[in-house]
Amino acid sequence: MEVVRKNFKEAMPLIEESINKADFFSIDTEFTGLINGRDVSMFDTPGDYYTRLLSGSAEFMLIQFGLCAFYWDKEKKQYMNDAYNFFLFPRARPGPDRMFLCQSSSLDFLAANGFDFNKLIREGISYLPEPVETRLRETLQERQSTYSREKDSIRIPEENKPHVEEVCKRVATFIKESKEDEMEIDKCNAFVRLLLFQELRNRFKDDIIVDTKVLENKTRVLKVIRRTEDMGDPEAIRKQREWDDLEEAVGFSKVARMISASRKLVVGHNMLLDILHTLGHFFQQPPYDYALFKEFVTCMFPKLLDTKYMSSSPPFKDKLSSSVLNELLTSLSQKPFSLPKVGSLEGRGYSQLDDKQHEAGYDAYMTGLCFLAMLAHRRGRHARCDDSLPALQPYLNKLFLAKTARQDSPYINLVGDDPTPPRDHVFHMIFPKDWQRSDINQLFSPFGAITVQFIDEISAFVALDRRDQAADVLRVLAGNTRVQLTPFEKHRRCSSSESEMAPQRSDWPKADTYKLMKTTSDAKSRQVVNNRPVVSNLPAAPQLPQKVSRVSSAPVTPPPAPGVAKKRSSSGVFEVDELEPVAKKIDVKTPQKQSKVVNGGQQEASSKSKHNKTDKKSQSDDKTKPKDEKIKIVEKFDSEAKSNCVSAFKESDLWD
Amino acid sequence: MEVVRKNFKEAMPLIEESINKADFFSIDTEFTGLINGRDVSMFDTPGDYYTRLLSGSAEFMLIQFGLCAFYWDKEKKQYMNDAYNFFLFPRARPGPDRMFLCQSSSLDFLAANGFDFNKLIREGISYLPEPVETRLRETLQERQSTYSREKDSIRIPEENKPHVEEVCKRVATFIKESKEDEMEIDKCNAFVRLLLFQELRNRFKDDIIVDTKVLENKTRVLKVIRRTEDMGDPEAIRKQREWDDLEEAVGFSKVARMISASRKLVVGHNMLLDILHTLGHFFQQPPYDYALFKEFVTCMFPKLLDTKYMSSSPPFKDKLSSSVLNELLTSLSQKPFSLPKVGSLEGRGYSQLDDKQHEAGYDAYMTGLCFLAMLAHRRGRHARCDDSLPALQPYLNKLFLAKTARQDSPYINLVGDDPTPPRDHVFHMIFPKDWQRSDINQLFSPFGAITVQFIDEISAFVALDRRDQAADVLRVLAGNTRVQLTPFEKHRRCSSSESEMAPQRSDWPKADTYKLMKTTSDAKSRQVVNNRPVVSNLPAAPQLPQKVSRVSSAPVTPPPAPGVAKKRSSSGVFEVDELEPVAKKIDVKTPQKQSKVVNGGQQEASSKSKHNKTDKKSQSDDKTKPKDEKIKIVEKFDSEAKSNCVSAFKESDLWD
Repeated sequence: MEVVRKNFKEAMPLIEESINKADFFSIDTEFTGLINGRDVSMFDTPGDYYTRLLSGSAEFMLIQFGLCAFYWDKEKKQYMNDAYNFFLFPRARPGPDRMFLCQSSSLDFLAANGFDFNKLIREGISYLPEPVETRLRETLQERQSTYSREKDSIRIPEENKPHVEEVCKRVATFIKESKEDEMEIDKCNAFVRLLLFQELRNRFKDDIIVDTKVLENKTRVLKVIRRTEDMGDPEAIRKQREWDDLEEAVGFSKVARMISASRKLVVGHNMLLDILHTLGHFFQQPPYDYALFKEFVTCMFPKLLDTKYMSSSPPFKDKLSSSVLNELLTSLSQKPFSLPKVGSLEGRGYSQLDDKQHEAGYDAYMTGLCFLAMLAHRRGRHARCDDSLPALQPYLNKLFLAKTARQDSPYINLVGDDPTPPRDHVFHMIFPKDWQRSDINQLFSPFGAITVQFIDEISAFVALDRRDQAADVLRVLAGNTRVQLTPFEKHRRCSSSESEMAPQRSDWPKADTYKLMKTTSDAKSRQVVNNRPVVSNLPAAPQLPQKVSRVSSAPVTPPPAPGVAKKRSSSGVFEVDELEPVAKKIDVKTPQKQSKVVNGGQQEASSKSKHNKTDKKSQSDDKTKPKDEKIKIVEKFDSEAKSNCVSAFKESDLWD
Repeated sequence: MEVVRKNFKEAMPLIEESINKADFFSIDTEFTGLINGRDVSMFDTPGDYYTRLLSGSAEFMLIQFGLCAFYWDKEKKQYMNDAYNFFLFPRARPGPDRMFLCQSSSLDFLAANGFDFNKLIREGISYLPEPVETRLRETLQERQSTYSREKDSIRIPEENKPHVEEVCKRVATFIKESKEDEMEIDKCNAFVRLLLFQELRNRFKDDIIVDTKVLENKTRVLKVIRRTEDMGDPEAIRKQREWDDLEEAVGFSKVARMISASRKLVVGHNMLLDILHTLGHFFQQPPYDYALFKEFVTCMFPKLLDTKYMSSSPPFKDKLSSSVLNELLTSLSQKPFSLPKVGSLEGRGYSQLDDKQHEAGYDAYMTGLCFLAMLAHRRGRHARCDDSLPALQPYLNKLFLAKTARQDSPYINLVGDDPTPPRDHVFHMIFPKDWQRSDINQLFSPFGAITVQFIDEISAFVALDRRDQAADVLRVLAGNTRVQLTPFEKHRRCSSSESEMAPQRSDWPKADTYKLMKTTSDAKSRQVVNNRPVVSNLPAAPQLPQKVSRVSSAPVTPPPAPGVAKKRSSSGVFEVDELEPVAKKIDVKTPQKQSKVVNGGQQEASSKSKHNKTDKKSQSDDKTKPKDEKIKIVEKFDSEAKSNCVSAFKESDLWD
């Protein structure tokens, strides 16, 4: 089912019903870009991978969300699917006028796969992260409280007086003589509209209601409505409409929060970016601290399963030739696998006959089929899924890391320690600019085969196939004057300094930034960082609901499950206990002013953080640089253009 | 005529012909956003206005360019128009994968006015600024020189060997047995493609050509082409195709440079942003230094005319009720004005019957009509336009400043001094948070009427109608403990510090950044700023054409007019003599590393710049802040939401 702005409100009860009856969901999302700035390297640790992906993806927009709810049909003894393909476009008014990044290759790719950008922009459903929603609610509440005190405070400039008088005359005529119920005032600029709004309400308060109307081409005009007895209080009507507008602006975020609140299993394919965008756009920006991020994810989505991880793990790894979604589905439809029968009610779900690849809803549906096929293979039969099944446990809460998977670092473990593959056999190397790949091969030929990842024209990572040769390499090549070799870990400690991993856009709206929150309800404590308003307090925790002002809010989200009250607010907001140590990274990277928002106790705790490495920053960089050359970092590694390098980590299928 | 990627090449001769025969052009452009960050204030100087607009608009993309060429039909004694509406979308490969900003309200507005985003992304013509083009040409040149030295440098990993062998076997069969000319290799990932490319070329060099092919859904596959005698050297074919791809990436920039090289009159409506985007996307990013910007514009476009400025000036100002483009056109079709007869050849131009408002080509056409109508009014008759006409001179090379026009600062004078309206009657004021507009009125009531521009909840600019009261205001309100009043100029000097006006995105691709250039041709002198490659040398000036390597470049741009060689390169690049002082602002704002690119002499000159104010920065800011409150800067001034403020400067028609 395609959901856009015009059918969103009527679809909400259906969506809620689907979420309630589902055993599990599969999801997929589309964005306006993948990565801005330096990409992940193929030897990165899961933590570094996460941080780089987060800082490189936060400014892109989520534009399509596919949700497929799988529910069990007891009679047919099979799964049914309710599928939704949401077009999402965050709108200005009453929300903030969003600035977001696009990556030309990503838009190109989406367009080539049939993505309808006109539908997106004309009909996309709005959404807001939680802190912005809260701020808007507070602001509206405050503003509405002044309506009764409003005075006609704007003096009409001399030059506008004739026009205002002329319109007033026409309205007087309309009131007395016309038989119409409404009258539209000719288009005029915003200032004149404001003058007229004020003047007309003032003069004809008892006879008319003055309203603004947005024409199809986005022009705003004034509308004068004849007042009748049954109309009720115009101020109340105006207030109600403002709350309705706000609810529309929150839009899809409600669906995301319903999924979160259900605490059910959510399945995705290569889902790390989907999760980052889902959290950042509908909840709040994930924290840069990696441990805190894990806690945040498991709090919001306690059961995640990544089918790309599952299909790349035993026993599937050796039985499947590809983990690209559509190829995986094809493999899983053949022996020794079989796809489940999955039906749907008329117009409510997909069938395999729909071939709508790269439509988020259909990709979510395919992901769900792959999951069920693999699960059935482990259990020996197709049957109802229960996420406590032992067969599922090895795959739960592990997010696939496509770009480091070939280097023994295939996943993030959300509920435990990550794999820590050794990097003793990997070196950072600086070499003369005229060197080709063959020169590097030549240099390393005494030590066996190598894997090379070029960073730029004069540096690369080199990994030995024969790991036992690492010590020899260092010993033998130490005296080579043409190259500079640094063990990977040493290079990482020095050059992947925190400042480099930090988000670099100092002017990006800070309202969306993840912030550690305390359950204060002091509406006046908003702070300004970098000339932009930042919300430092979020909606009160469930303990203090009376302090949250939501006059017209009708939350669709059910209350949180018992036992998690300290971590989840009623609207799905993640809250951190004051006792928890604050991420060092947040302090280091954010501008000076922001640290004032964090209280002293937290700052103290932070200084004990293990991430405190700023003092060592870039020491070895200086040492290893040749005197006469500057390092050039290649932004995007172009495997087509530079044929003399290994580009496994840029495989096009890694993002599928 | 709509021009998209598929008809661009064939349209080029027509476009060139139109440019050559035209008396003048009118242009219009559409962007992905208007302003990021703080907007212009209504009391800004032209220089501040320029700097803020430049830094707030540089990251948006230009997506449609309307060009209307007006040429004289001697027989009919009337103008004819050739009009082009170009859809523009910068593509990755071989150009950089562009990251650009969108503003949700702008996309919303364009969509509401019928803009076709699917056509944009699927069929838009690419473009590149000059420095990026130069770098790509150099890189390609360098890379192609290594082709003959290329070795099979990639070891085939064990796991890939069976697949590679299997494909080689199939290709061998194809060579011997098939009757087809081509064979496609099944989809595989980029790394395997690279291995196959290398292995197939190696084994079957004499029988086949191996090529890559991009399928409709952007998947890349390998294509094996049977080699025939008439095929020529495959390496030469490959090289030629790479140059062709580069020419396609330069795309629309060639048209812009042809317009520039023609040195003819270019007419636009409210054209400052059009000019900024045109320069930044097709030439190079305009300099932050205001004087240098004026020089840059007049060098690239020596004759500009802004119809919004013209219609807002005598004698038109008092005869026209609106300067919004379509309303202006309506007014100019009525007495005492009259529109010219403008014809067009079948399919080559617009007529007034086409109502395609907000299509850049049609807006350009309307702009041209408005210009001709106003010109005819001044001359008393419709006749051929000559830009040396005395009637035109008052309007030439002045760009309208919409947001300060009501405050006596209506234009940038590109060829002389700007208006310097007094601001003695304007004050920056900080007031208690609970104040309404009426409180401010009350405070100033002894001094007559005022104009207020709110900055945020606790500060505003206040302008007196009775300018002679300024000294009294200061004297009387100095002792008021509830407000802090600062004369506008003083506030401006202190708070509009350079750091605030500077571009804030430290991670934005610096390759597009305006840089002062010297005509060095040392291809190795590229520098790295912020981990991004920057081109510090541009194509050689006409004096040194032999040093520019453009193997496959067929410049469509005619050579520059005599006498301007030092300012324009053959491809339309602006160059600054070494003796000219360097903009102080560039030194101050760009990261430390960048100053190394500028030579010592220039740095010395820069310290004499009049903009050297960093030492005074924010002094008074600290003084004027109330102790217990932080200043909140409202990003966007929302006239609808905050009815107690004057919002003339946000008039919706100001951008039309």
